[in-house]
Amino acid sequence: MTNSKVEERLNQAGYVLPAAPAPQGSYVPVVVAGSVAYCSGVLPMLDGALVAKGRLGVDITVDEARKGAELAALGILANLKAAIGDLDKVARVARLGGFVASSPDFTDQPEVINAASDLMVLAFGEDGRHSRAAVGVAVLPRGVAVELEATFILK
Amino acid sequence: MTNSKVEERLNQAGYVLPAAPAPQGSYVPVVVAGSVAYCSGVLPMLDGALVAKGRLGVDITVDEARKGAELAALGILANLKAAIGDLDKVARVARLGGFVASSPDFTDQPEVINAASDLMVLAFGEDGRHSRAAVGVAVLPRGVAVELEATFILK
Amino acid sequence: MTNSKVEERLNQAGYVLPAAPAPQGSYVPVVVAGSVAYCSGVLPMLDGALVAKGRLGVDITVDEARKGAELAALGILANLKAAIGDLDKVARVARLGGFVASSPDFTDQPEVINAASDLMVLAFGEDGRHSRAAVGVAVLPRGVAVELEATFILK
Repeated sequence: MTNSKVEERLNQAGYVLPAAPAPQGSYVPVVVAGSVAYCSGVLPMLDGALVAKGRLGVDITVDEARKGAELAALGILANLKAAIGDLDKVARVARLGGFVASSPDFTDQPEVINAASDLMVLAFGEDGRHSRAAVGVAVLPRGVAVELEATFILK
Repeated sequence: MTNSKVEERLNQAGYVLPAAPAPQGSYVPVVVAGSVAYCSGVLPMLDGALVAKGRLGVDITVDEARKGAELAALGILANLKAAIGDLDKVARVARLGGFVASSPDFTDQPEVINAASDLMVLAFGEDGRHSRAAVGVAVLPRGVAVELEATFILK
Repeated sequence: MTNSKVEERLNQAGYVLPAAPAPQGSYVPVVVAGSVAYCSGVLPMLDGALVAKGRLGVDITVDEARKGAELAALGILANLKAAIGDLDKVARVARLGGFVASSPDFTDQPEVINAASDLMVLAFGEDGRHSRAAVGVAVLPRGVAVELEATFILK
Protein backbone atom coordinates (compact mmCIF):
# COMPACT_ATOMS: atom_id res chain seq x y z
CA MET A 1 0.00 0.00 0.00
CA THR A 2 1.30 3.40 -0.99
CA ASN A 3 1.87 5.82 1.85
CA SER A 4 2.63 8.94 -0.12
CA LYS A 5 3.88 12.24 1.25
CA VAL A 6 0.72 13.91 -0.02
CA GLU A 7 -1.48 11.53 1.93
CA GLU A 8 0.72 11.87 5.01
CA ARG A 9 0.22 15.63 4.95
CA LEU A 10 -3.53 15.17 4.64
CA ASN A 11 -3.65 12.59 7.42
CA GLN A 12 -1.58 14.73 9.78
CA ALA A 13 -4.10 17.53 9.26
CA GLY A 14 -6.93 15.16 10.16
CA TYR A 15 -8.17 14.35 6.65
CA VAL A 16 -8.64 10.83 5.32
CA LEU A 17 -9.07 9.94 1.67
CA PRO A 18 -12.46 8.29 1.20
CA ALA A 19 -13.17 5.35 -1.07
CA ALA A 20 -13.17 6.66 -4.62
CA PRO A 21 -16.74 7.91 -5.20
CA ALA A 22 -18.78 6.16 -7.91
CA PRO A 23 -19.66 8.29 -10.94
CA GLN A 24 -23.23 9.65 -10.96
CA GLY A 25 -23.63 8.78 -14.64
CA SER A 26 -22.11 7.23 -17.79
CA TYR A 27 -18.58 8.49 -17.45
CA VAL A 28 -15.26 7.68 -15.79
CA PRO A 29 -13.77 9.49 -12.79
CA VAL A 30 -10.44 10.34 -14.43
CA VAL A 31 -8.96 10.41 -17.93
CA VAL A 32 -5.17 10.50 -18.12
CA ALA A 33 -3.84 11.79 -21.45
CA GLY A 34 -0.10 12.28 -21.56
CA SER A 35 0.82 14.35 -18.54
CA VAL A 36 -2.69 15.72 -17.99
CA ALA A 37 -5.30 14.14 -15.73
CA TYR A 38 -8.86 15.33 -16.35
CA CYS A 39 -10.97 14.65 -13.23
CA SER A 40 -14.74 14.43 -13.40
CA GLY A 41 -17.07 16.54 -11.34
CA VAL A 42 -17.40 15.15 -7.82
CA LEU A 43 -20.19 15.70 -5.30
CA PRO A 44 -19.63 15.82 -1.52
CA MET A 45 -19.81 12.36 0.03
CA LEU A 46 -19.26 11.06 3.55
CA ASP A 47 -19.16 7.34 4.30
CA GLY A 48 -20.63 6.64 0.89
CA ALA A 49 -23.62 8.98 1.20
CA LEU A 50 -24.18 12.34 -0.43
CA VAL A 51 -23.98 15.22 2.04
CA ALA A 52 -24.04 19.03 2.01
CA LYS A 53 -27.39 19.17 0.27
CA GLY A 54 -29.19 22.45 -0.27
CA ARG A 55 -28.63 25.84 -1.85
CA LEU A 56 -26.56 28.66 -0.42
CA GLY A 57 -28.76 31.53 0.60
CA VAL A 58 -31.67 29.17 1.15
CA ASP A 59 -31.08 26.14 3.35
CA ILE A 60 -27.36 25.52 3.89
CA THR A 61 -24.77 27.71 5.58
CA VAL A 62 -21.41 28.76 4.18
CA ASP A 63 -19.68 26.63 6.82
CA GLU A 64 -21.69 23.55 5.89
CA ALA A 65 -21.01 24.13 2.20
CA ARG A 66 -17.29 24.63 2.91
CA LYS A 67 -17.24 21.22 4.57
CA GLY A 68 -18.93 19.89 1.43
CA ALA A 69 -16.28 21.52 -0.74
CA GLU A 70 -13.55 19.81 1.32
CA LEU A 71 -15.28 16.45 0.94
CA ALA A 72 -15.61 16.95 -2.82
CA ALA A 73 -11.90 17.82 -2.98
CA LEU A 74 -11.05 14.66 -1.04
CA GLY A 75 -13.26 12.72 -3.46
CA ILE A 76 -11.32 14.10 -6.42
CA LEU A 77 -8.04 13.11 -4.77
CA ALA A 78 -9.42 9.62 -4.06
CA ASN A 79 -10.42 9.27 -7.72
CA LEU A 80 -7.03 10.51 -8.86
CA LYS A 81 -5.19 8.11 -6.57
CA ALA A 82 -7.29 5.23 -7.90
CA ALA A 83 -6.35 6.26 -11.44
CA ILE A 84 -2.62 6.95 -11.07
CA GLY A 85 -1.75 4.91 -8.00
CA ASP A 86 0.12 7.52 -6.01
CA LEU A 87 -0.69 11.19 -5.42
CA ASP A 88 3.04 11.97 -5.25
CA LYS A 89 2.98 11.67 -9.05
CA VAL A 90 1.16 15.01 -9.23
CA ALA A 91 3.39 17.80 -10.55
CA ARG A 92 0.80 20.56 -10.28
CA VAL A 93 -2.85 21.23 -9.68
CA ALA A 94 -3.63 23.09 -12.90
CA ARG A 95 -7.26 24.07 -12.51
CA LEU A 96 -10.20 23.73 -10.14
CA GLY A 97 -13.75 24.35 -11.30
CA GLY A 98 -16.17 25.08 -8.48
CA PHE A 99 -19.95 25.14 -8.85
CA VAL A 100 -22.02 26.39 -5.92
CA ALA A 101 -25.81 25.93 -5.90
CA SER A 102 -26.95 29.43 -4.98
CA SER A 103 -29.99 31.61 -4.64
CA PRO A 104 -29.70 34.78 -6.75
CA ASP A 105 -28.75 36.87 -3.71
CA PHE A 106 -25.85 34.70 -2.50
CA THR A 107 -22.57 36.07 -3.85
CA ASP A 108 -19.88 34.51 -1.63
CA GLN A 109 -19.08 31.54 -3.87
CA PRO A 110 -15.32 32.17 -3.43
CA GLU A 111 -15.57 31.63 0.34
CA VAL A 112 -17.16 28.22 -0.27
CA ILE A 113 -14.67 27.06 -2.89
CA ASN A 114 -11.72 28.40 -0.88
CA ALA A 115 -12.15 25.38 1.40
CA ALA A 116 -11.36 23.10 -1.56
CA SER A 117 -8.52 25.31 -2.74
CA ASP A 118 -6.95 25.36 0.71
CA LEU A 119 -7.11 21.58 0.86
CA MET A 120 -5.20 21.34 -2.43
CA VAL A 121 -2.49 23.62 -1.07
CA LEU A 122 -2.39 21.60 2.15
CA ALA A 123 -1.97 18.40 0.15
CA PHE A 124 0.51 19.55 -2.49
CA GLY A 125 2.15 22.67 -1.05
CA GLU A 126 3.24 25.18 -3.67
CA ASP A 127 2.39 22.67 -6.41
CA GLY A 128 -1.19 22.80 -5.16
CA ARG A 129 -1.62 26.46 -6.07
CA HIS A 130 -4.04 26.37 -8.99
CA SER A 131 -6.11 28.43 -11.38
CA ARG A 132 -9.79 28.41 -10.60
CA ALA A 133 -13.25 29.44 -11.69
CA ALA A 134 -16.09 29.57 -9.16
CA VAL A 135 -19.67 30.28 -10.17
CA GLY A 136 -23.12 30.14 -8.64
CA VAL A 137 -25.45 27.73 -10.42
CA ALA A 138 -29.19 27.20 -10.10
CA VAL A 139 -28.99 23.62 -8.88
CA LEU A 140 -26.61 20.68 -8.83
CA PRO A 141 -27.05 16.92 -9.35
CA ARG A 142 -28.87 15.15 -6.48
CA GLY A 143 -29.45 18.53 -4.82
CA VAL A 144 -25.96 19.02 -3.37
CA ALA A 145 -24.57 22.48 -2.67
CA VAL A 146 -21.13 22.04 -4.24
CA GLU A 147 -19.59 20.27 -7.22
CA LEU A 148 -15.87 20.33 -8.03
CA GLU A 149 -13.93 19.32 -11.09
CA ALA A 150 -10.16 19.49 -11.54
CA THR A 151 -7.27 19.19 -13.96
CA PHE A 152 -3.88 17.97 -12.77
CA ILE A 153 -0.45 17.91 -14.38
CA LEU A 154 1.46 14.69 -13.68
CA LYS A 155 5.20 14.13 -13.35
CA MET B 1 -15.53 11.29 -48.79
CA THR B 2 -14.37 9.72 -45.57
CA ASN B 3 -16.40 6.80 -44.29
CA SER B 4 -14.82 6.37 -40.91
CA LYS B 5 -15.39 3.50 -38.51
CA VAL B 6 -16.71 5.97 -35.96
CA GLU B 7 -19.35 7.25 -38.34
CA GLU B 8 -20.24 3.71 -39.41
CA ARG B 9 -20.95 2.80 -35.80
CA LEU B 10 -23.13 5.88 -35.40
CA ASN B 11 -24.98 5.22 -38.65
CA GLN B 12 -25.62 1.58 -37.79
CA ALA B 13 -27.20 2.73 -34.54
CA GLY B 14 -29.47 5.09 -36.47
CA TYR B 15 -27.58 8.34 -35.91
CA VAL B 16 -26.50 10.70 -38.68
CA LEU B 17 -23.95 13.48 -38.30
CA PRO B 18 -25.66 16.80 -39.03
CA ALA B 19 -24.10 19.67 -40.93
CA ALA B 20 -21.59 21.32 -38.59
CA PRO B 21 -23.65 23.82 -36.58
CA ALA B 22 -22.78 27.50 -36.98
CA PRO B 23 -21.35 29.20 -33.87
CA GLN B 24 -23.85 31.34 -31.93
CA GLY B 25 -21.25 34.12 -31.53
CA SER B 26 -17.74 35.40 -32.28
CA TYR B 27 -15.81 32.19 -31.89
CA VAL B 28 -14.77 29.08 -33.79
CA PRO B 29 -16.22 25.60 -33.33
CA VAL B 30 -12.91 23.85 -32.67
CA VAL B 31 -9.34 24.80 -31.80
CA VAL B 32 -6.72 22.12 -32.38
CA ALA B 33 -3.52 22.68 -30.41
CA GLY B 34 -1.01 19.85 -30.66
CA SER B 35 -2.90 16.68 -29.81
CA VAL B 36 -5.76 18.42 -28.04
CA ALA B 37 -9.00 19.56 -29.72
CA TYR B 38 -11.01 22.09 -27.73
CA CYS B 39 -14.63 22.02 -28.92
CA SER B 40 -16.97 24.95 -28.35
CA GLY B 41 -20.27 24.70 -26.57
CA VAL B 42 -22.95 23.34 -28.89
CA LEU B 43 -26.73 23.69 -28.63
CA PRO B 44 -29.19 20.99 -29.79
CA MET B 45 -30.07 21.43 -33.46
CA LEU B 46 -32.18 19.39 -35.86
CA ASP B 47 -32.26 20.18 -39.59
CA GLY B 48 -30.61 23.51 -38.90
CA ALA B 49 -33.07 24.69 -36.25
CA LEU B 50 -32.59 24.89 -32.50
CA VAL B 51 -34.64 22.29 -30.63
CA ALA B 52 -35.08 21.04 -27.06
CA LYS B 53 -36.00 24.44 -25.74
CA GLY B 54 -37.15 24.94 -22.17
CA ARG B 55 -35.99 24.29 -18.64
CA LEU B 56 -36.00 20.98 -16.84
CA GLY B 57 -38.55 20.97 -14.06
CA VAL B 58 -40.61 23.58 -15.88
CA ASP B 59 -41.50 22.90 -19.50
CA ILE B 60 -39.40 20.09 -20.97
CA THR B 61 -39.19 16.44 -19.93
CA VAL B 62 -36.06 14.45 -19.18
CA ASP B 63 -36.65 12.37 -22.30
CA GLU B 64 -36.94 15.45 -24.51
CA ALA B 65 -33.80 16.94 -22.96
CA ARG B 66 -31.94 13.64 -23.41
CA LYS B 67 -32.76 13.79 -27.11
CA GLY B 68 -31.39 17.34 -27.07
CA ALA B 69 -28.21 16.13 -25.38
CA GLU B 70 -27.76 13.52 -28.12
CA LEU B 71 -28.23 16.16 -30.80
CA ALA B 72 -25.70 18.45 -29.11
CA ALA B 73 -23.24 15.55 -28.96
CA LEU B 74 -23.77 14.88 -32.67
CA GLY B 75 -23.21 18.59 -33.31
CA ILE B 76 -19.89 18.44 -31.48
CA LEU B 77 -18.84 15.43 -33.54
CA ALA B 78 -19.88 17.23 -36.73
CA ASN B 79 -17.78 20.23 -35.74
CA LEU B 80 -14.84 18.01 -34.87
CA LYS B 81 -15.07 16.15 -38.19
CA ALA B 82 -15.14 19.46 -40.05
CA ALA B 83 -11.99 20.51 -38.17
CA ILE B 84 -9.89 17.34 -38.35
CA GLY B 85 -11.38 15.61 -41.39
CA ASP B 86 -11.93 12.16 -39.93
CA LEU B 87 -13.31 11.13 -36.53
CA ASP B 88 -11.07 8.05 -36.57
CA LYS B 89 -8.24 10.42 -35.66
CA VAL B 90 -9.69 10.70 -32.15
CA ALA B 91 -7.57 8.91 -29.57
CA ARG B 92 -9.76 9.66 -26.58
CA VAL B 93 -12.69 11.74 -25.45
CA ALA B 94 -11.01 13.56 -22.56
CA ARG B 95 -13.81 15.62 -21.08
CA LEU B 96 -17.45 16.48 -21.58
CA GLY B 97 -19.01 19.55 -19.97
CA GLY B 98 -22.78 19.40 -19.68
CA PHE B 99 -24.99 22.34 -18.79
CA VAL B 100 -28.68 21.70 -18.12
CA ALA B 101 -31.14 24.60 -17.84
CA SER B 102 -32.96 23.68 -14.64
CA SER B 103 -35.46 24.94 -12.14
CA PRO B 104 -34.05 24.85 -8.59
CA ASP B 105 -35.93 21.64 -7.77
CA PHE B 106 -34.69 19.58 -10.73
CA THR B 107 -31.68 17.50 -9.65
CA ASP B 108 -31.38 14.78 -12.31
CA GLN B 109 -28.85 16.55 -14.53
CA PRO B 110 -26.78 13.33 -14.80
CA GLU B 111 -29.69 11.47 -16.45
CA VAL B 112 -29.90 14.17 -19.12
CA ILE B 113 -26.18 14.31 -19.86
CA ASN B 114 -25.88 10.51 -19.80
CA ALA B 115 -27.52 10.52 -23.23
CA ALA B 116 -24.55 12.48 -24.60
CA SER B 117 -22.04 10.35 -22.72
CA ASP B 118 -23.59 7.15 -24.03
CA LEU B 119 -23.38 8.49 -27.57
CA MET B 120 -19.65 9.15 -27.14
CA VAL B 121 -19.13 5.56 -25.97
CA LEU B 122 -21.25 4.28 -28.85
CA ALA B 123 -19.11 6.27 -31.30
CA PHE B 124 -15.65 5.63 -29.89
CA GLY B 125 -16.00 2.49 -27.74
CA GLU B 126 -13.61 2.38 -24.80
CA ASP B 127 -11.84 5.49 -26.14
CA GLY B 128 -15.14 7.31 -25.72
CA ARG B 129 -15.15 6.91 -21.95
CA HIS B 130 -14.57 10.41 -20.64
CA SER B 131 -14.38 12.61 -17.60
CA ARG B 132 -17.39 14.84 -17.13
CA ALA B 133 -18.97 17.64 -15.18
CA ALA B 134 -22.73 18.18 -15.31
CA VAL B 135 -24.40 21.13 -13.64
CA GLY B 136 -27.80 22.80 -13.60
CA VAL B 137 -27.74 26.38 -14.84
CA ALA B 138 -30.36 29.10 -14.70
CA VAL B 139 -30.74 29.47 -18.45
CA LEU B 140 -28.88 28.73 -21.69
CA PRO B 141 -28.36 30.66 -24.92
CA ARG B 142 -31.50 30.90 -27.12
CA GLY B 143 -33.50 29.18 -24.37
CA VAL B 144 -32.34 25.62 -25.04
CA ALA B 145 -32.33 22.99 -22.29
CA VAL B 146 -28.85 21.56 -22.87
CA GLU B 147 -25.42 22.81 -23.89
CA LEU B 148 -22.39 20.55 -24.28
CA GLU B 149 -18.71 21.30 -24.66
CA ALA B 150 -15.91 18.76 -25.10
CA THR B 151 -12.17 18.19 -25.17
CA PHE B 152 -10.70 15.44 -27.33
CA ILE B 153 -7.23 13.92 -27.54
CA LEU B 154 -6.14 13.24 -31.12
CA LYS B 155 -3.86 10.52 -32.47
CA MET C 1 9.22 47.46 -20.11
CA THR C 2 7.72 45.27 -22.78
CA ASN C 3 5.80 47.03 -25.53
CA SER C 4 4.40 44.04 -27.32
CA LYS C 5 2.56 44.04 -30.63
CA VAL C 6 -0.49 42.64 -28.86
CA GLU C 7 -0.58 45.52 -26.42
CA GLU C 8 0.03 48.03 -29.22
CA ARG C 9 -3.03 46.73 -31.04
CA LEU C 10 -5.10 47.01 -27.87
CA ASN C 11 -3.83 50.50 -27.12
CA GLN C 12 -4.47 51.72 -30.67
CA ALA C 13 -8.08 50.56 -30.29
CA GLY C 14 -8.39 52.53 -27.06
CA TYR C 15 -7.94 49.70 -24.56
CA VAL C 16 -5.42 49.74 -21.72
CA LEU C 17 -4.36 46.69 -19.74
CA PRO C 18 -5.30 47.21 -16.09
CA ALA C 19 -3.20 46.20 -13.12
CA ALA C 20 -3.47 42.43 -12.80
CA PRO C 21 -6.61 41.88 -10.69
CA ALA C 22 -6.15 40.20 -7.31
CA PRO C 23 -7.70 36.74 -6.96
CA GLN C 24 -11.03 36.66 -5.10
CA GLY C 25 -9.96 33.57 -3.14
CA SER C 26 -7.24 31.01 -2.38
CA TYR C 27 -5.89 30.48 -5.86
CA VAL C 28 -3.43 31.92 -8.37
CA PRO C 29 -4.35 33.91 -11.48
CA VAL C 30 -2.46 31.72 -13.95
CA VAL C 31 -0.88 28.27 -14.02
CA VAL C 32 1.58 27.63 -16.84
CA ALA C 33 2.15 23.95 -17.55
CA GLY C 34 4.30 23.24 -20.58
CA SER C 35 2.79 25.23 -23.44
CA VAL C 36 -0.62 25.66 -21.81
CA ALA C 37 -1.62 28.61 -19.62
CA TYR C 38 -4.70 28.03 -17.48
CA CYS C 39 -6.19 31.39 -16.49
CA SER C 40 -8.47 31.75 -13.49
CA GLY C 41 -11.94 33.19 -13.65
CA VAL C 42 -11.83 36.99 -13.67
CA LEU C 43 -14.54 39.46 -12.68
CA PRO C 44 -14.99 42.88 -14.35
CA MET C 45 -12.88 45.54 -12.64
CA LEU C 46 -12.24 49.20 -13.39
CA ASP C 47 -9.62 51.19 -11.50
CA GLY C 48 -9.42 48.43 -8.92
CA ALA C 49 -13.15 48.25 -8.17
CA LEU C 50 -15.65 45.61 -9.24
CA VAL C 51 -18.09 46.90 -11.86
CA ALA C 52 -20.91 45.56 -14.05
CA LYS C 53 -22.88 44.26 -11.10
CA GLY C 54 -26.34 42.82 -11.53
CA ARG C 55 -28.15 40.11 -13.45
CA LEU C 56 -29.11 40.22 -17.10
CA GLY C 57 -32.85 40.43 -17.50
CA VAL C 58 -33.15 42.09 -14.09
CA ASP C 59 -30.98 45.11 -13.42
CA ILE C 60 -28.18 45.43 -15.99
CA THR C 61 -28.39 45.94 -19.77
CA VAL C 62 -26.67 43.90 -22.44
CA ASP C 63 -24.49 46.90 -23.30
CA GLU C 64 -23.39 47.32 -19.69
CA ALA C 65 -22.65 43.62 -19.39
CA ARG C 66 -20.72 43.67 -22.68
CA LYS C 67 -18.51 46.41 -21.22
CA GLY C 68 -18.05 44.15 -18.18
CA ALA C 69 -17.08 41.25 -20.46
CA GLU C 70 -14.44 43.45 -22.12
CA LEU C 71 -13.05 44.46 -18.73
CA ALA C 72 -12.91 40.83 -17.62
CA ALA C 73 -11.08 39.95 -20.84
CA LEU C 74 -8.58 42.76 -20.21
CA GLY C 75 -8.16 41.43 -16.67
CA ILE C 76 -7.32 37.98 -18.01
CA LEU C 77 -4.75 39.49 -20.38
CA ALA C 78 -3.27 41.51 -17.51
CA ASN C 79 -2.97 38.34 -15.43
CA LEU C 80 -1.42 36.46 -18.32
CA LYS C 81 1.11 39.23 -19.00
CA ALA C 82 2.08 39.22 -15.32
CA ALA C 83 2.63 35.45 -15.53
CA ILE C 84 4.51 35.14 -18.83
CA GLY C 85 5.97 38.61 -19.23
CA ASP C 86 4.91 39.34 -22.79
CA LEU C 87 1.59 38.71 -24.55
CA ASP C 88 3.43 38.17 -27.83
CA LYS C 89 4.34 34.74 -26.44
CA VAL C 90 0.74 33.63 -26.98
CA ALA C 91 0.42 31.18 -29.87
CA ARG C 92 -3.34 30.75 -29.66
CA VAL C 93 -6.33 31.50 -27.52
CA ALA C 94 -7.59 27.96 -27.04
CA ARG C 95 -10.76 28.38 -25.03
CA LEU C 96 -12.88 31.03 -23.38
CA GLY C 97 -15.46 30.16 -20.74
CA GLY C 98 -18.12 32.80 -20.23
CA PHE C 99 -20.57 32.86 -17.34
CA VAL C 100 -23.42 35.38 -17.44
CA ALA C 101 -25.58 35.99 -14.35
CA SER C 102 -29.06 35.76 -15.85
CA SER C 103 -32.71 35.66 -14.98
CA PRO C 104 -34.42 32.57 -16.42
CA ASP C 105 -35.90 34.56 -19.31
CA PHE C 106 -32.65 36.13 -20.56
CA THR C 107 -31.23 34.02 -23.40
CA ASP C 108 -28.74 36.31 -25.16
CA GLN C 109 -25.63 35.17 -23.31
CA PRO C 110 -23.70 34.94 -26.62
CA GLU C 111 -24.18 38.66 -27.28
CA VAL C 112 -22.63 39.46 -23.90
CA ILE C 113 -19.65 37.14 -24.25
CA ASN C 114 -19.07 38.20 -27.87
CA ALA C 115 -17.58 41.43 -26.48
CA ALA C 116 -14.84 39.39 -24.80
CA SER C 117 -14.36 37.19 -27.85
CA ASP C 118 -14.04 40.20 -30.13
CA LEU C 119 -11.41 41.67 -27.83
CA MET C 120 -9.35 38.47 -28.07
CA VAL C 121 -9.48 38.63 -31.87
CA LEU C 122 -8.58 42.33 -31.76
CA ALA C 123 -5.57 41.53 -29.57
CA PHE C 124 -4.28 38.39 -31.26
CA GLY C 125 -5.75 38.47 -34.78
CA GLU C 126 -6.37 35.02 -36.25
CA ASP C 127 -4.56 33.46 -33.29
CA GLY C 128 -7.25 34.98 -31.10
CA ARG C 129 -10.02 32.90 -32.64
CA HIS C 130 -11.00 30.50 -29.87
CA SER C 131 -13.39 27.79 -28.80
CA ARG C 132 -15.95 28.94 -26.30
CA ALA C 133 -18.76 27.97 -23.98
CA ALA C 134 -21.22 30.60 -22.73
CA VAL C 135 -23.88 29.81 -20.18
CA GLY C 136 -26.35 31.68 -17.99
CA VAL C 137 -25.79 31.12 -14.28
CA ALA C 138 -27.92 32.01 -11.27
CA VAL C 139 -25.41 34.39 -9.69
CA LEU C 140 -21.69 35.18 -9.74
CA PRO C 141 -19.16 36.05 -7.03
CA ARG C 142 -19.61 39.53 -5.54
CA GLY C 143 -22.79 39.99 -7.60
CA VAL C 144 -21.13 40.77 -10.93
CA ALA C 145 -22.87 40.05 -14.24
CA VAL C 146 -19.99 38.36 -16.06
CA GLU C 147 -17.11 36.02 -15.24
CA LEU C 148 -14.57 34.83 -17.80
CA GLU C 149 -11.94 32.11 -17.69
CA ALA C 150 -9.51 31.20 -20.46
CA THR C 151 -6.93 28.73 -21.70
CA PHE C 152 -4.04 29.87 -23.87
CA ILE C 153 -1.43 28.01 -25.88
CA LEU C 154 2.04 29.56 -25.62
CA LYS C 155 4.84 29.64 -28.19
